[in-house]
Amino acid sequence: MFNKDCFLDHIAVAVENLDVAEKVYQDLGLTFDKRETVLDQQVETSFAHIDENAHIELLMPIDKKGPIQAFLEKKGPGIHHMCYRVPDVVKKSEELTALGYKLLYETPRSGANNCLVNFIHPKSTGGVLIEISQKM
Amino acid sequence: MFNKDCFLDHIAVAVENLDVAEKVYQDLGLTFDKRETVLDQQVETSFAHIDENAHIELLMPIDKKGPIQAFLEKKGPGIHHMCYRVPDVVKKSEELTALGYKLLYETPRSGANNCLVNFIHPKSTGGVLIEISQKM
Repeated sequence: MFNKDCFLDHIAVAVENLDVAEKVYQDLGLTFDKRETVLDQQVETSFAHIDENAHIELLMPIDKKGPIQAFLEKKGPGIHHMCYRVPDVVKKSEELTALGYKLLYETPRSGANNCLVNFIHPKSTGGVLIEISQKM
Repeated sequence: MFNKDCFLDHIAVAVENLDVAEKVYQDLGLTFDKRETVLDQQVETSFAHIDENAHIELLMPIDKKGPIQAFLEKKGPGIHHMCYRVPDVVKKSEELTALGYKLLYETPRSGANNCLVNFIHPKSTGGVLIEISQKM
């Protein structure tokens, strides 16, 4: 059984075109049910359920700035991060910082889907950008 | 709700050391419950539940050959692929090939956890190596 205090919220994939990217996962068998613009990250997102709680989240830049545009220019399209849901993102951020992990934000910020989020730097995790998220 | 005919089986992460990598996800809140050696891929794997069906699968090379060792040498540690469970991997491979996707194996092969698997080449999917898997 998975731990209700830490489970996958989503896998985020940086894409150049939402319609083209959705088709790949639709051909696989997934169904997309929601798009949302996240101005703070300068992206349009599209969500499909991939398990009981988890989604795949496609991220397309909405202008030529922002972290996803920078990622696409540097690495090309691909998996950008994975996100785990925790009960208290402020507390978890403090715990991880105390353990020596490098967090991206000093204070958690608003993300997609009405969540409060922070990120652990890939240098702290063995090459994986990990988001932690709390439902508001 | 997710589609029972296509859901996340696992996210695979290439790591240099299983003990070090497990500690990151344990600090996050996950619990690892199983290790398994997959000789065909020349890796030792470690699994933790991340949702109802899905796992994170850490992959460490067991010698200086094999696809995960090659990935680590080329890109460093990080997310290697994501895997979706389908009811019939032979049929799904044929369907995807007919739609123009490039599959890695002509015929599905045995993978970890007693599964029959195939992979869709990242060039066909927008930069993501996607495994499809059927429970045997």
